[in-house]
Parts: sequence; C-alpha cells; structure tokens
Amino acid sequence: MLFKEITIIDENLDAKENMVVGVTDDTITYIGDKLPENLSGYGRVYDGKNKILMTGLFNTHCHMPMTLLRGYAENLKLQEWLYDKIFPFEAKINNDDSYYASLLAIAEMVSTGTVSVTDMYAHMESNAKACADSGFKANISNGLMAFDDTPFIKNKNHLEEEACALKFKDSFNGRIKIDKSVHAVYTSNRKTVEDVACFAKENNSIVHIHLSETETEVKECLEKYGVTPVKYFYNAGLLDSHVVAAHCVCLTDEDMDILAKSGTFAVHNPISNLKLASGVADIPKMQEKGIKIALGTDGTASNNNLDLFEEIKMCALINKGVKLNPLSVSTKDVLRYATINGALAQRRYDCGALKVGNKADLIVLDTSSPSMQPVHNACNNLVYSASGRDVCLTMIDGKIVYENNEFKTIDIERAIYEVNKSASRIKKELCL
Amino acid sequence: MLFKEITIIDENLDAKENMVVGVTDDTITYIGDKLPENLSGYGRVYDGKNKILMTGLFNTHCHMPMTLLRGYAENLKLQEWLYDKIFPFEAKINNDDSYYASLLAIAEMVSTGTVSVTDMYAHMESNAKACADSGFKANISNGLMAFDDTPFIKNKNHLEEEACALKFKDSFNGRIKIDKSVHAVYTSNRKTVEDVACFAKENNSIVHIHLSETETEVKECLEKYGVTPVKYFYNAGLLDSHVVAAHCVCLTDEDMDILAKSGTFAVHNPISNLKLASGVADIPKMQEKGIKIALGTDGTASNNNLDLFEEIKMCALINKGVKLNPLSVSTKDVLRYATINGALAQRRYDCGALKVGNKADLIVLDTSSPSMQPVHNACNNLVYSASGRDVCLTMIDGKIVYENNEFKTIDIERAIYEVNKSASRIKKELCL
Repeated sequence: MLFKEITIIDENLDAKENMVVGVTDDTITYIGDKLPENLSGYGRVYDGKNKILMTGLFNTHCHMPMTLLRGYAENLKLQEWLYDKIFPFEAKINNDDSYYASLLAIAEMVSTGTVSVTDMYAHMESNAKACADSGFKANISNGLMAFDDTPFIKNKNHLEEEACALKFKDSFNGRIKIDKSVHAVYTSNRKTVEDVACFAKENNSIVHIHLSETETEVKECLEKYGVTPVKYFYNAGLLDSHVVAAHCVCLTDEDMDILAKSGTFAVHNPISNLKLASGVADIPKMQEKGIKIALGTDGTASNNNLDLFEEIKMCALINKGVKLNPLSVSTKDVLRYATINGALAQRRYDCGALKVGNKADLIVLDTSSPSMQPVHNACNNLVYSASGRDVCLTMIDGKIVYENNEFKTIDIERAIYEVNKSASRIKKELCL
Repeated sequence: MLFKEITIIDENLDAKENMVVGVTDDTITYIGDKLPENLSGYGRVYDGKNKILMTGLFNTHCHMPMTLLRGYAENLKLQEWLYDKIFPFEAKINNDDSYYASLLAIAEMVSTGTVSVTDMYAHMESNAKACADSGFKANISNGLMAFDDTPFIKNKNHLEEEACALKFKDSFNGRIKIDKSVHAVYTSNRKTVEDVACFAKENNSIVHIHLSETETEVKECLEKYGVTPVKYFYNAGLLDSHVVAAHCVCLTDEDMDILAKSGTFAVHNPISNLKLASGVADIPKMQEKGIKIALGTDGTASNNNLDLFEEIKMCALINKGVKLNPLSVSTKDVLRYATINGALAQRRYDCGALKVGNKADLIVLDTSSPSMQPVHNACNNLVYSASGRDVCLTMIDGKIVYENNEFKTIDIERAIYEVNKSASRIKKELCL
C-alpha cells in the first residue's frame, strides 16, 4: 500500500504535507516527499488529499469487557457504585460475554484510532482471543488478587496468566502479549506481591497494576503498612521489573522520585479520574521528574467510551486548567504519551512512530469535517479539534482492520447483538 | 414528519423507548406511544430503530468567525497569545471572511446537534446573515467596547447592533435575534455601561457579556473600581436586564448571590476555561445558590471545536473531579444546561424541550456506533459516551438542515474553500 500526497505526523511528531508513505507486508518501508523509485511491491495507492496519516494510538489501561456496563450506573458514591452496581453485575459475566464485550471494545478502539491495548480483566483468555481474532494488538493480564494464604504458585489468576502466556506465545506475529499483574495494593497481600516481583524479575515480565488512584487507597495503605502504595510496591521489589501503573493520581514527591528512578510507566486516565472523583494527576510535575507517561481510557463504566482522542484532549486541557498554566502539557507532549510512550509501555520497540522499519500500525484521519477546518497546524487540530470519529482508516501490522465505517475483521452487528443479549440476561439474573 | 419507534428524551429529560413524535410545519404536534389517529398532515415517516430523538442543543457563548483561527496558536501565555497572535489576525478579518467563517461554524454546530447560538463578534451583520441563510437560530451581538468619551448614542458597536436589529426584525420566523452587549469590564468605561443598562431596560433587551473569566480580570477590576466585575455591572444597573454572562469562573459568594437574585444566566465554558488556564467555575455551588446555568463552547481558538456534546461531558466530569464528589452535576443537570436553560437564556420560550406546541428543533442520534452500545440508559450514554458526530439528523423550525453527513442549507465545500482562502490571505498579509 502506498499513501500519497498525504499530511503525515513524523517520528518527531511534526506535521509534514504532501508526503508519500509505503507499506510492504507488515512494515513501513518508505517515507519521502516523492514517489519511491521502485513502485512494484506496493499494491493499492491511497489518495491522501484532506487526510492526515499518523501512527496508531496505544491505550495503556483498559478493562475491555466493561463495555457491557456502559452507562449502567452513574452519579453514585464510589462504594455504592462498586458494591451495589458494578460488582454484582461483573459476577455474572461469563467467558462468552467477555469475548463479545471485548470485540465491541476493540471495534470502538480501532474505529477511533487505537491499534493496541493494555488490558486487565477476568476471562483473560476470551479477551486475548478477541484481540487475536480481530487483528488487534494487546497486552493482556487478569488483575491478580490474593486475599488469603494460598501460595503464589497456586494463585488462580497467576495460573491463568501462565496458561494464556503458553497459548499465545509465538503466534499472531507477536501481537498478543500476556503480562503479569497485581490488581492493586488493597486486593493483594504482601507475600504474593513479593512472589509476583520475583517471578516477574526472573521471567523479564511486564507487570500491570493499579496505583495510587484515590486518597482513600493511599490513606488505607499508610494505615495498614505505614508506607504509600508506591513505597509498598517498591519495598516488595515489584518496581525492579517493567511496571505499567495505572492512575498515579495521589503521589508524594518521594513517590514520583521512585517511579522516575525505577522507570515505571505511569498511565494517565484523566477522564476516569474526573468521573470517579479521584482527582487530577500532576502530569507536568511527573514529566519534570522524568517519569514516563502514557495514556489510558480505563474501562467503559468509568469513562464512558474508549476514544483515546478524548483522553488526548482532556490531558492537554486539564493540566492547564488545574495548574492555571497554559504552557502545561504541549501538543507534542500529549501526542508522545498516546503513541511512542504507549508502545514502549507495552515493550513494542518497533511501534508507536511513523518510521521506516517500524510495524505498519497506521491511522488516517479525514480533515474534511467542519471541526477539522482550516488546518493551520495538523498537530494542533489532532489534539484540540479531532474526535476519534474522524478516523477513516486503521491499519495494524500492515492489515486494514477498519475503513470508512466498515470493520474488516469484526462482525460488528453480531458483537452488538451478543453484548445486548448478555447485558439483558445478566440484568434478568440480577432481577432488574 | 413522523418519527416512529424512536427513543425520546422527554421534557423531563427522561428516556422513553418506542415513542412516536409528529412535526407539522415548524411545530411539534404529537408525542405518544402509539401512532396518532390522524396520519394525514405528517409527510415522511422516519424509522427510529437504534435512534434517540431529543431537543437540539443551545450553545450560549460563541464567537463564530473564530473558526478562521482554529489551531492557529497554541500553548502560549495569554498576553502573547492575544497580542502577538489573535488580535493581529482578527484585525485582518473582513465581512466576507466573517460570513463564510460563520457558515463553517454553523455547519459544525448543526452537524453536532446544536440548533441555536448566542454569538458575540465583529462583522455581526455578516454573521447574522450566515445564520439566516442556513436556517440556524441565533442571538447575535458584536461585543460593545468603549475606551474613550464617545457618547453612547454614537458608539459604533451600539449603532451596528441597532442597524442589525432593524434589518432582522420580524423576519426569519423569529430565528434571528439581535442582542445588546458589553464585551467586558476591562474593555468599557462606566458611563457607557450605565447607558447600555438604561437602553436595555427601556428596550427590554438581552445583554451578552463576558464576566469574571480570570483572576487577573477580577484583580484589575478591584484595583480600578474597588469592586468585583459582578458588583461593577450590578452597580451600573446592567443586571436589572436579561443578562447572559459568559464564564463566571472567579466569583465570590456575594457575586453568586447577586447573579442568583438578578436572574442572570451564567454560561459555563469548561473547555475554554481549562485551555486558557482560567480555572474551573464552581457549578455545583452556583446551582445550589439558584443561578441559572447554560453551556457554551466559546470560540474555536480556545476550544478548538464547537461540539456542545464535548461541553456536556466536560461539565459533568470536571465538576466531579475538581470537587472530589461523584454526585456533582447529574446527568439531568447537564442536559438541562445544554437544552432548556440555553433556550431560556435566549428568551426562546417555545424551544429547548420535546413538548407538544414547542418549535420542532430536534436532533436524532444514531446509537449503532460501538461507542453507544449497549444502551442501559439513553441519558447516560448521551452525557458520557456520545460525540456530536453521532448526530445523524438536525431539524430547526421543522426544517431538516443536516442529515447523514449532508448539509441541506449550507454549501459546505464552498464554505471550507472560502475559509481556507481567507486564512491564507490573512497570513500572507501578516507576512507569515
């Protein structure tokens, strides 16, 4: 495939007009301002007029099957929301429900420009399968919990992750990676966290965790363990591994120093943090400290959609408005969080930037909608004006998975039908 | 036109499934759960499967011609942004530029669910004409300024508003209203504000103003006049009239009491306030005090789009996240701000709600996109999941102005062409 006369966002996140980008198999093989000399090997030629081509986005914190719960419970206090609404519903979700709910989530993501997700949820094999089947990229874990003395090697969540790792190893062109996980400080005991830390170090694993999401979490951790959640995981040795930590809303200065030094990725989920009234992560300070920042949508129940362009805009806005500083979080900063930083968080070193030799994970945005005109600066329009709905083509590993409202790898009508059927059944089981 | 088997958001902002809504001429003439007995008089029948029908939205603070400046200048300090970038560009805008830039703004608004705007900008006759020509509703003013001793009856902005009022009076089915205005406390002298106050009282005018947008504005007003901007306008008698006050970010308790007592409409522009680092208006407290709240996008340079669904979501989110209270701003609260409160701010008493006898200002949203599925609660999806891009039909005074990506009253290609031509010319004149 050859994209011609197209505006690109290059690997430095600068916009360049009238460019040519060539894709061969699953790889970006040409970027230039002229047609390549050897045109054979490029099949379809794509007319780039009024289009922007950029790397696809990386959503580094999600719970895909929660699409089942979109709009199910709103404007409630956290405890009521969780214990009266979310948990009882989740307890009824089975593997099939989870598969189709993940498919719906993937459809939403690819149609709004996301090419890869870091996901944590039960039924992880079903969720990984949905990603594999739809050509999506994913780092999947299940959110390990440990409330009792069960030894780590018998921990159900750990075993499920290991079984999955075996199943998806060496297939799907490396698209599906199985991560380790610790759900959170408040859902695991110290011994198990230490065991995960050892296991992850030995196996060079990525570990996905929730971290310092609310004041309550930090307060309870201080009361129980005498340290902040960051210090708790640090002391347990977990931060020696490649850790992807969602939220990081309530951090002390010392916490930030630890995250920076340990190379932990902090995933900013600004919409979820506002909606659940958790607060606003101090992104400018975290960046200044050298913490690696990526972006996530969180699950649909706390957002309520998976359009990462909304997180991009929100990240750029909230950190200006709350800090009263219009210079906080530049256009390039936030685009970096959503692209290359996300790819690095997933340890996909050949992804996340428009660069020859990288995997062809590409999205095209149509600038002919009124919201995108005029284009003084394509990057500014991407951050402040665009919606994921402006995406008109999504390619993953060189394969088009979405184009002009059509899903090439997902039977969207079936997915919507199955999700609605599951939601109805569950509500019936809950006597609602 | 007869919408059948459609989910509606009724006048109480509750969702009802499988409803029938009839429109005759410019009016809603039937709402029921069965087909009306007398079907004659309703022409086209609209299949409402997977659709939500609701009143159109009211954007009560905008500067339409600023679409010319979309993405032109970002991440700058306010003074640099205004004096080095925005003002020099604006000085080059002529009437024709303004007409087409307004058309583009209107296209963006109708395609994202807005049926009416309260707009303040120079070249107001061109802007009003763009609204008239495109079937849009608008309350237009030009942002009166008064820096010297010119008597009010010779004030250029006042005279332009009066000339426009005469021109648009009694035409276009009342769609185009000409408001009075005071740009802001820092761009007018006390004598002129008093004269506007007298004039507005005598003529029963609506007055559109900017109010307490930033700490700097409040501080300078206190230094110069010894009172807050709210008190300043109150003392000048302006708040005796029907005032629509944009921003209201920095208010004292006494300010809020004055706004509540005077019946002033406070227009919340959350995205603009974040982007320009002005801060976050205390909407929960303002609502508690009884202030009437509406929503606005502000101009494109400080947003950067005119999709009021983004303001709806942002309003619901920001007031939870900053107040650390998930109960702040309910789904119904924010839908009320964007609909009936906006219509009342524009003194359109037969608009803003799905009600027999009201003007047929209607929008239809398609719920078949992945972001809108499943629909546990249509109102929740509208607030937290929807994008203006889900709007598939917009009707104003019974006339369809937009349907399925087609503009019925605007030559969108021409508008985009002209706006780009204007933007290029202006940048050339500025030697950029």
